[in-house]
Amino acid sequence: MVEKVDEKKILINSERLLARIEEMSQFGLDEKTGGINRQLGSQADKDTREWLKTIWEKDIGLKVTIDAAANMWGSYGKHLSDRPIVFGSHHDSVPNGGKFDGALGVLMAMEAMQSIRERKIKTRHPLEIISFTGEEPNSFSVSTLGSKILCGRVTQKDINIFSDRDTGRPLTEAIDWLGGDSRRINEARLKKGMMTAFLEFHIEQGQNLYRKKLAVAAVTCITGIYRESITIKGEANHAGTTQLQDRHDALCAASELCLSIEQLMAKFNALSVTVGHMQIKPNASNIIPGEVYFTIDLRTAFPAEREEALLLLTEKVNEIMKKRNVQIIRKLNLDQPEMPMNETVIDAVVKAMQEEGQPPVKLVSMAGHDAANMARLTKAAMLFAQSVGGYSHCPQEYTAPREVIIAAQVYLDTLLILDKEFE
Amino acid sequence: MVEKVDEKKILINSERLLARIEEMSQFGLDEKTGGINRQLGSQADKDTREWLKTIWEKDIGLKVTIDAAANMWGSYGKHLSDRPIVFGSHHDSVPNGGKFDGALGVLMAMEAMQSIRERKIKTRHPLEIISFTGEEPNSFSVSTLGSKILCGRVTQKDINIFSDRDTGRPLTEAIDWLGGDSRRINEARLKKGMMTAFLEFHIEQGQNLYRKKLAVAAVTCITGIYRESITIKGEANHAGTTQLQDRHDALCAASELCLSIEQLMAKFNALSVTVGHMQIKPNASNIIPGEVYFTIDLRTAFPAEREEALLLLTEKVNEIMKKRNVQIIRKLNLDQPEMPMNETVIDAVVKAMQEEGQPPVKLVSMAGHDAANMARLTKAAMLFAQSVGGYSHCPQEYTAPREVIIAAQVYLDTLLILDKEFE
Repeated sequence: MVEKVDEKKILINSERLLARIEEMSQFGLDEKTGGINRQLGSQADKDTREWLKTIWEKDIGLKVTIDAAANMWGSYGKHLSDRPIVFGSHHDSVPNGGKFDGALGVLMAMEAMQSIRERKIKTRHPLEIISFTGEEPNSFSVSTLGSKILCGRVTQKDINIFSDRDTGRPLTEAIDWLGGDSRRINEARLKKGMMTAFLEFHIEQGQNLYRKKLAVAAVTCITGIYRESITIKGEANHAGTTQLQDRHDALCAASELCLSIEQLMAKFNALSVTVGHMQIKPNASNIIPGEVYFTIDLRTAFPAEREEALLLLTEKVNEIMKKRNVQIIRKLNLDQPEMPMNETVIDAVVKAMQEEGQPPVKLVSMAGHDAANMARLTKAAMLFAQSVGGYSHCPQEYTAPREVIIAAQVYLDTLLILDKEFE
Repeated sequence: MVEKVDEKKILINSERLLARIEEMSQFGLDEKTGGINRQLGSQADKDTREWLKTIWEKDIGLKVTIDAAANMWGSYGKHLSDRPIVFGSHHDSVPNGGKFDGALGVLMAMEAMQSIRERKIKTRHPLEIISFTGEEPNSFSVSTLGSKILCGRVTQKDINIFSDRDTGRPLTEAIDWLGGDSRRINEARLKKGMMTAFLEFHIEQGQNLYRKKLAVAAVTCITGIYRESITIKGEANHAGTTQLQDRHDALCAASELCLSIEQLMAKFNALSVTVGHMQIKPNASNIIPGEVYFTIDLRTAFPAEREEALLLLTEKVNEIMKKRNVQIIRKLNLDQPEMPMNETVIDAVVKAMQEEGQPPVKLVSMAGHDAANMARLTKAAMLFAQSVGGYSHCPQEYTAPREVIIAAQVYLDTLLILDKEFE
């Protein structure tokens, strides 16, 4: 009985957690914009790792292991021995990103670990925390890099190919500089069954919780992501002398397609689709655009919606080709299926939410996360907290102290429930 | 009577003219694309000038004068003495341009000059030919440079500001390298009344003549050109997690505006409008575009059409701002009024067309030309020849020998009529 009461009582140290959010946000901070620049392989990435390592070792008493992918692990015993419960997130950011995306997931894992340690709780499973390498989209053109290597989606062969599209710096050089070992990438790969469970905390990056004034949600599925690039070949011609009936304006064709793509979001409730990148040729004010290249990013947790949306897109593409006498070339870049989270881990999150007096809200994650890769290796789920205004990947990202504290407490409770319920 | 018959008989040397088109097209030729790269200040620009100078001096017997703007003049007597009839065009090209734009106008002037010389025709006015500096849009961001300097639209003060947007090379350096004198730009400026008339030949750059299977047309007016740039400020956000009602997608707003702009061309017959340049920020496939910058190029010879079109544009801009909750900032970049050609010179062209058995077709030029600047200094007009398919500013530019020869003959006739009719 005494043990049970002790477990119920265990509380996180909210002051420490809130202070660390501020402290960590100094790495890569742009004073002018308030944005965080902590991209994979940057000096700020490296500095953050040093800062984390010191706290993990000195304050929490962990043994720090850097694997070949430069993922940072913190364990009490031997790294990954005896099927630990693993939890954490990533410390890198997009260019001009926010203080909470990834960072709060790492700090929450540290806080849970430290609180359990301070309360001298004996868990049935070893606990191990992780901060992943390169989760965000980056100039090496590979996101969730650390977890992709863990589950074998990126191998030694792949790693040698990536390089920074701006500077040409090889990814292998960045990994080694961060403490990894780019010649032994395959050694970082894990086998199924080496972990008992994986839990990741993240800010929602959307407005579902904010709109309903809710603090937290359990994540049931991570969206599938489908990406294609489209090249429209029209005819470059003189802006003054070419009459309407003689124009094959690639930008007008692209505009028509963009608006149709936007309308797909109105037709399908659980689908996001975005044209985020576009390049125009020759891109001169007095020449009709002859060629436009753009990308489509389409996300849904429901394959049937994706298929239906792609059919409508194909219809529109054919209509525009015919009507405007332009060529439209499509190239598939990514077709990553949705990844359902594990029911047992979801249930543990929900139970913890209820223990903390929170409504048992469940959400689909419309963003990709390391948890989707970890789900290939173990039973995984995620906890989301409210992000004010749903801001994400920008300096305005903000989760208020109240929601941070509720989430941290639900997170800690979830770990203890998992520890109790899993073999 | 004998004199009149002689004049009627004077013919251009078509073989020589056609051969020179091929010869001149070797300067700046890209063997792969067949395109011409003879941009202002390039080695090909300089080489072409050397080639022209040699022919002007050796074959035609002209005295060559390079003015401070690096315009090339060819005269028998003293440069610009005794109110000459001036005729010519430009030898520069856009990147990957064609063999005919500008070049044929220079070669036609040379052919007329040489034919008149060979027939020992005594004209009442001195004749003088010109090849203008930097007529085409170029990386120094100034088109019709040579004629703008002649009429005072570009002065010493301006010239010191322009530099190559790619390399930073000052325009002054390019002008001096081409034989001009960038410290004495204002000395190139001409006074009204120094010339009797100006005639320019150019390919049509549109399909009016090609469609009707006509060889030549007299130009009655050079279009007004209105340019503005538009910045749409929406909100950059996560492509996956941002729902439709929370999006302020700057690219979707731009797409809607682009299609409305295209529709203006259907509403107004004598108006061309083009969005040719567009930049997207942050331009990442997984971020909703937060900002889009683009240019509008609107041309018409009829100010009332322009005003009405701009009113419709403003209505649409306001509608989109309201509907999409985005900010739209407009900036006027150019408002160059239409330039009517001189009636007497037009009549001379028409008379010459009729002498050669051609229907007296008149057209508005929807492209800008040096003639528009020359019209500020003297009585000016233009002669257009059919361009197959209306191609312009691309390697496909082509005017067939038949039309070249008809145009050259009309051109020569026009000069002789002008000489006879003008005081």
